[in-house]
Amino acid sequence: MAKYLRYDFGAPGNPQNDHLIFSKGHASPLLYAMYRATGAITDEELLSYRKRGSRLEGHPTPALPWVDVATGSLGQGLPIGVGVALAGKRLDRLPYRVWVLTGDSELAEGSMWEAFEHAAHERLDNLTAVLDINRLGQRGETMHGWDLDYFSRRLSATGWQTIEIDGHDVAQIDAAFAVATSTAGQPVAVIARTIKGKGVASVEDKNGFHGKPIEDANAAIRELGGRPDVSVIVAKPGGDGEPQRFQTGPLELPRYDRGGKEATRKAYGDALAALGVARGDVVALDGEVSNSTYAEVFARQTPDRYFEMFIAEQQMAAAAVGMQVRGWKPFASTFAAFWSRAYDFIRMAAISRADIRLCGSHAGVSIGEDGPSQMALEDLAEFRAVWSSTVLYPCDPNQTAKLVAQMADLEGIVYLRTTREKTPVIYDPDDDFPIGGSRVLLQTPVDTVTIVAAGITVHEAMKAADRLAEDGIRARIIDLYSVKPIDEATLRVAARETNGLVTVEDHWPEGGLGEAVLSVFANDEIRPRVTKLAVRGMPGSATPAEQLAAAGIDAAAIAEAARALAAHASEEVGSVAGNRVGQGSA
Amino acid sequence: MAKYLRYDFGAPGNPQNDHLIFSKGHASPLLYAMYRATGAITDEELLSYRKRGSRLEGHPTPALPWVDVATGSLGQGLPIGVGVALAGKRLDRLPYRVWVLTGDSELAEGSMWEAFEHAAHERLDNLTAVLDINRLGQRGETMHGWDLDYFSRRLSATGWQTIEIDGHDVAQIDAAFAVATSTAGQPVAVIARTIKGKGVASVEDKNGFHGKPIEDANAAIRELGGRPDVSVIVAKPGGDGEPQRFQTGPLELPRYDRGGKEATRKAYGDALAALGVARGDVVALDGEVSNSTYAEVFARQTPDRYFEMFIAEQQMAAAAVGMQVRGWKPFASTFAAFWSRAYDFIRMAAISRADIRLCGSHAGVSIGEDGPSQMALEDLAEFRAVWSSTVLYPCDPNQTAKLVAQMADLEGIVYLRTTREKTPVIYDPDDDFPIGGSRVLLQTPVDTVTIVAAGITVHEAMKAADRLAEDGIRARIIDLYSVKPIDEATLRVAARETNGLVTVEDHWPEGGLGEAVLSVFANDEIRPRVTKLAVRGMPGSATPAEQLAAAGIDAAAIAEAARALAAHASEEVGSVAGNRVGQGSA
Repeated sequence: MAKYLRYDFGAPGNPQNDHLIFSKGHASPLLYAMYRATGAITDEELLSYRKRGSRLEGHPTPALPWVDVATGSLGQGLPIGVGVALAGKRLDRLPYRVWVLTGDSELAEGSMWEAFEHAAHERLDNLTAVLDINRLGQRGETMHGWDLDYFSRRLSATGWQTIEIDGHDVAQIDAAFAVATSTAGQPVAVIARTIKGKGVASVEDKNGFHGKPIEDANAAIRELGGRPDVSVIVAKPGGDGEPQRFQTGPLELPRYDRGGKEATRKAYGDALAALGVARGDVVALDGEVSNSTYAEVFARQTPDRYFEMFIAEQQMAAAAVGMQVRGWKPFASTFAAFWSRAYDFIRMAAISRADIRLCGSHAGVSIGEDGPSQMALEDLAEFRAVWSSTVLYPCDPNQTAKLVAQMADLEGIVYLRTTREKTPVIYDPDDDFPIGGSRVLLQTPVDTVTIVAAGITVHEAMKAADRLAEDGIRARIIDLYSVKPIDEATLRVAARETNGLVTVEDHWPEGGLGEAVLSVFANDEIRPRVTKLAVRGMPGSATPAEQLAAAGIDAAAIAEAARALAAHASEEVGSVAGNRVGQGSA
Repeated sequence: MAKYLRYDFGAPGNPQNDHLIFSKGHASPLLYAMYRATGAITDEELLSYRKRGSRLEGHPTPALPWVDVATGSLGQGLPIGVGVALAGKRLDRLPYRVWVLTGDSELAEGSMWEAFEHAAHERLDNLTAVLDINRLGQRGETMHGWDLDYFSRRLSATGWQTIEIDGHDVAQIDAAFAVATSTAGQPVAVIARTIKGKGVASVEDKNGFHGKPIEDANAAIRELGGRPDVSVIVAKPGGDGEPQRFQTGPLELPRYDRGGKEATRKAYGDALAALGVARGDVVALDGEVSNSTYAEVFARQTPDRYFEMFIAEQQMAAAAVGMQVRGWKPFASTFAAFWSRAYDFIRMAAISRADIRLCGSHAGVSIGEDGPSQMALEDLAEFRAVWSSTVLYPCDPNQTAKLVAQMADLEGIVYLRTTREKTPVIYDPDDDFPIGGSRVLLQTPVDTVTIVAAGITVHEAMKAADRLAEDGIRARIIDLYSVKPIDEATLRVAARETNGLVTVEDHWPEGGLGEAVLSVFANDEIRPRVTKLAVRGMPGSATPAEQLAAAGIDAAAIAEAARALAAHASEEVGSVAGNRVGQGSA
């Protein structure tokens, strides 16, 4: 490996460096031993493995500067490697190579085959996969054991060049890597037959020792020929070219006229395209639905930086992670419901400290006739429960555009939820919408109730407020476009100044907007009544308006909940002096 | 198709019926037209397509008795079909055939290749896949267009027999199906070249018409040769054998002695094995980690009803859905973190009204050294936000056993979260733990604070209570083993009788135990202070105890939060008569 890997351990940020990804993250001892052999880490640090505070975690993470991404959930390293290789070919346009070591158990993960297919389709000859076929998974033999031909046949059929070797024969490894580094037009897989635990008889090729320390380590060391002091020199990359930089221009975000109508998904596409013109580091990916998410606007305008990922959401998320390894700013989009397909990749992206931007369109029951399979009703819960995440849910195209522009520089996992149908333009193109903020759309000194909405329900809340006004009830309306981080200050003012909150979301009741609001007040002195409106029954097909009504999240349902809260509150005021003094806070 | 499909439309529950699954659920008009042709539905109902209240939703769901499962999220019908076919071969042992129609865009989903691999590995010659290669996806051409050979090569390499045909040539279709129904030992794929919109010049083989109604329907009907009145007779299945029934015995759940220690994951395995002996309808699946989840206990005891799904969580979830189509009671297990890999399948399983039981082991930071890639910290949020779900999180092996026994008869998506390390046995083997219940572990008439915990944190809460008692603070402890449904009554009593609640969970702060508790009180008269302890920083490697401490969810952190709440509450009592009267509830 040292003969072929080009890596400057003293400058892990060198854009010319190769990338080495252990897709089988549980082989971390091997990775760390390699770092030790290069002198990148000391013996002392090597022995801190899996101890508290050590950079050498049980599975690799970017706590180590030479680790691009966290692995350990199998089937992810290769798809991410495809993303890095795509960046090398089409974005950086640098000759670095991506090396990925995979296990054999993880070849059962469909995501690996998404990666194999995409790598071949994109002719990624800068990608080399080394398949460690040791036949033994965690609990026994894999599906195909040492049948190297099986893997070779499948990979060849997918468009890869394959080389089968004895993984313990250095000459064969050398020859295979020579082919891998000189093959043009297609990726190469080195399929290596290996023996798990080779050289230590007590565990060699035996089941039941996966992830377990060897009983007698000293005996094993003796058996392997004594304590090694291997030192290898990894050559630094030879080139000194800089990564490709794309031409940029001024940022001219789309502007929508108040009083008109436009879908926030369309605004996403328009704004992303504008951002692409203004910033050369912004790239877009889409899962074969760019005419629905409107990523197609970017694709038409900036084809060089657009990546069609077809219906392969796991590979799409992984490619975004791979591209941000090289500093690009990926925006990836699909139907919000289908991000659930890539949830493990998103979870792991957070562990990788990746900065990626994901857009989910067609959120909620308001999509209408297509039915529940196409409705995201769990995405807010899904993305809120991701470490480092930002969750945005605009109701207006101008607001969407301003949020998209900010997303490019946010860290962590950033999620934007958009709506299928056209909704009224209620904000001015020059309005600002800071992350973590909210907009109070209606407010008077005599508000009795607050409605907290986001996205599609903001428009229902506005209609509800009109009806409530007819009954003499003043409703404050908060557009909570930033679901995470949440505008605690504005919510607290509303809790203080009104008699209760109605939260309304086009989402299941769990983990979404309502619970985000409840969490703000959990330990506050003032803990307002909150009526949580959300989708509770399983929807079928119906028009958007029918769906909102059936789910109890339309204007009528909001008005009713607000009225109940207002009535309840005024009763309570009367009884406070009675037997329930201080009850709420005591 | 009518010549080969064996289906009794008058008795969709006939165990001998074939199964027809449209993996490309967006072809629902074709499916419904077929139902119309068989006379199963009327013209009138056919025209209710996508209208409110109609069974003919935009994508098929089991609202129709002939639809086994909901489709519409691509790449799921085939993996589910594999599950039905497995049930046919190994459980029912009936000769029914599973027919799956797939699209070509969805062949980019890795889950399809998990399914192709498993079907070949299991030699499912009772499964026929018809691949509709029309070259056009939603927004343009697929990766491989009409390259039928590409798919044929990949499928052959995976172990399928393949037949390439012109999908518009009835004789070729007939011949292919004849081969498909007579091939033994391997599944057959009929790879059909088709032309999208064939016969209507305005849309035929043209891009941009996906999912859109034809502009001039009458002209199109004329072009196709006039309004058809096709009527086909589908033969009923010939056989009359009953499904295989497995021998059963008495239920003897494992019993653990109080004062000992055992891991809840081990209790899951022991209880599942006991359940397998007692009930012939219980089957188990595992994702190549059965020695960690302890599904291996069942596997050893009841190999006939155990399915090794290897590292393919999507296929595992889908197989469980497929098996319950035929009335089996699947229990599937993997590390809790890796259920995130199958989240889209779980979401869709709820739309399918499937009854499946999923166990996730190795929850939370308490797994220790392996690091964050192996820690589920979002699974409670993930599963709470699934329609029809039950979420269970036991702290004790006897409790686990009682919950596992109940899971077999629960409807919907049932999730059980287990813990890696051994924890004290605190309950009696004869204790009962109803779903939706909780256990009050400590309670006195003078409790000042309540600690709400589940799983690993119950034991930390008990230790915290000891420390608090030393300071004269009485803590009530609620073991909230049923996170959903939640024991509202017991929580409300605690809110009334104590000054506040500390919730503590080995999970991110979003969407888990804390927010579930907050939702109970949202609109209550008494809304207690809640201090939510949860994991907030990204963990690394460390011992379980170090992890719990670093995350602020160990006994010390709980005691500190409880003390703060107790102190705070006593201050408040003094001020109630002052300026904050009724504030909490007004």
